[in-house]
Amino acid sequence: MPTPSDPDFAARVRASFGRQGFMRSLGAELTRVEPGACEIRLAFRDGLGQQHGYFHTGALSAIADSAGGYAGYTLMGAGDSVLSVEYKMNLLAPGRGDAAVARARVVKSGRTLTVCQVEVFVERDGVETLCALMQQTLIRMADRADTVVP
Amino acid sequence: MPTPSDPDFAARVRASFGRQGFMRSLGAELTRVEPGACEIRLAFRDGLGQQHGYFHTGALSAIADSAGGYAGYTLMGAGDSVLSVEYKMNLLAPGRGDAAVARARVVKSGRTLTVCQVEVFVERDGVETLCALMQQTLIRMADRADTVVP
Amino acid sequence: MPTPSDPDFAARVRASFGRQGFMRSLGAELTRVEPGACEIRLAFRDGLGQQHGYFHTGALSAIADSAGGYAGYTLMGAGDSVLSVEYKMNLLAPGRGDAAVARARVVKSGRTLTVCQVEVFVERDGVETLCALMQQTLIRMADRADTVVP
Amino acid sequence: MPTPSDPDFAARVRASFGRQGFMRSLGAELTRVEPGACEIRLAFRDGLGQQHGYFHTGALSAIADSAGGYAGYTLMGAGDSVLSVEYKMNLLAPGRGDAAVARARVVKSGRTLTVCQVEVFVERDGVETLCALMQQTLIRMADRADTVVP
Repeated sequence: MPTPSDPDFAARVRASFGRQGFMRSLGAELTRVEPGACEIRLAFRDGLGQQHGYFHTGALSAIADSAGGYAGYTLMGAGDSVLSVEYKMNLLAPGRGDAAVARARVVKSGRTLTVCQVEVFVERDGVETLCALMQQTLIRMADRADTVVP
Repeated sequence: MPTPSDPDFAARVRASFGRQGFMRSLGAELTRVEPGACEIRLAFRDGLGQQHGYFHTGALSAIADSAGGYAGYTLMGAGDSVLSVEYKMNLLAPGRGDAAVARARVVKSGRTLTVCQVEVFVERDGVETLCALMQQTLIRMADRADTVVP
Repeated sequence: MPTPSDPDFAARVRASFGRQGFMRSLGAELTRVEPGACEIRLAFRDGLGQQHGYFHTGALSAIADSAGGYAGYTLMGAGDSVLSVEYKMNLLAPGRGDAAVARARVVKSGRTLTVCQVEVFVERDGVETLCALMQQTLIRMADRADTVVP
Repeated sequence: MPTPSDPDFAARVRASFGRQGFMRSLGAELTRVEPGACEIRLAFRDGLGQQHGYFHTGALSAIADSAGGYAGYTLMGAGDSVLSVEYKMNLLAPGRGDAAVARARVVKSGRTLTVCQVEVFVERDGVETLCALMQQTLIRMADRADTVVP
């Protein structure tokens, strides 16, 4: 994995994560930030469920999308912003558990586009099960501040 | 579009939507149910935003996934359940607006698998902009009750 | 659909298609080029089959990918080149027929990225069946000649 | 990876590959078959190129799709057949090289559906570059012979 050009990448990622109102209202936590990698954790509660009482795939894709975006963002410049271009997610097992953990890693970091893979695990009674798999494309917005647009 | 085999398809979809805790906590509304089609609406609030203050793509994919799932579910049997197999979503424009509307339609309804297309529009000052496009695969769980698993 | 900035878009697309050795060896024909749209046709022969003797999905995705790429390319500049970023294709019906036709249209044409939808139909005894559906992302390579790299 | 239920899985995969006219006309070789894994190799020639003279993404997706399909097929039963449901492929680098190698592995093997990841590398002057990444869904057709339909 390339060395981040911005030595303060982790603080930059944490600040951007802190501005995502949706992560806050979900109750998601940013549990790991490393060069080209990111982990986000989400405890289950009824308000995150689908019709069978498992994690709604939308909640899983939300933490997977943010984990992938921030994995890519670790390798971008101090003045850059990041946006998702697209993603594809397969659901591999029911999201039945106490918590979900999305682990993202950069597969290819290009000048404009970045491609990530994200695995989402569900924890139940201390056992992790691979629950979803995402392949995601990001775009670097050069010299565009990562702040809330008024 | 084929005629639904279950004449009570709309009530069945509404009951299942009502069991999705995540749709309730997001504040999403089921605004249309027709054979092979479904619409879900979500008003914006800060708790649904990403780092720039727009709709988080996870919130958009959540309503798109549910809209597609219920579009497919209209054509399934009274005793069936539905699960998402996978989806792919392109983000076409920033989700900047007062509300988002996901409109899904069934492209192919097979015995086991169903394929849907979902368009997500964002409304701003009364103008709709196409904001995301999803292509989704569903699986019919034959004779499996669509209820919360205890 | 926006008016192409290059009035000679159709000739430019046809010349690029003519440089695709793979389209030639498949026997694919460029049957329609319009602003934001493109159609490619491929007659069946045994050398295009999979294990059941139907069109191999790789042959269908090849013409779908080229049709999408050239639909997007109609709206790019005279000095630009186009590359596929990614695509996702659902197979909806067996590719059993005498010919396949890929029809692409641009959904969103941005400055850097373009998103297309492509439908692939299979013809059998004069009847068309929707056989595959692709959602594709393209990137414009500004001021990069669309010629064979020596 | 689960043990294949069919001890003759490799012979079954090789026989099915031998029936794919498209793999033969491309010149693709089945270079490895193991439980839950498969590798297919394709030497470059002009007839496989796109407009810049690199591998056409359609040729790459064809070997990736077959490699994934046969990786999944190793774990299916002696009387089963396999079909692709859908796949998504990101192009990570230009397909410029002497040969392409698709390496597939099963991520999840379910009763009905199987999910695979496929990496496509391009070799140039003895160096391998990751060129494409596919995430694929397969369906098992129980008790349906894997032979050419007359």
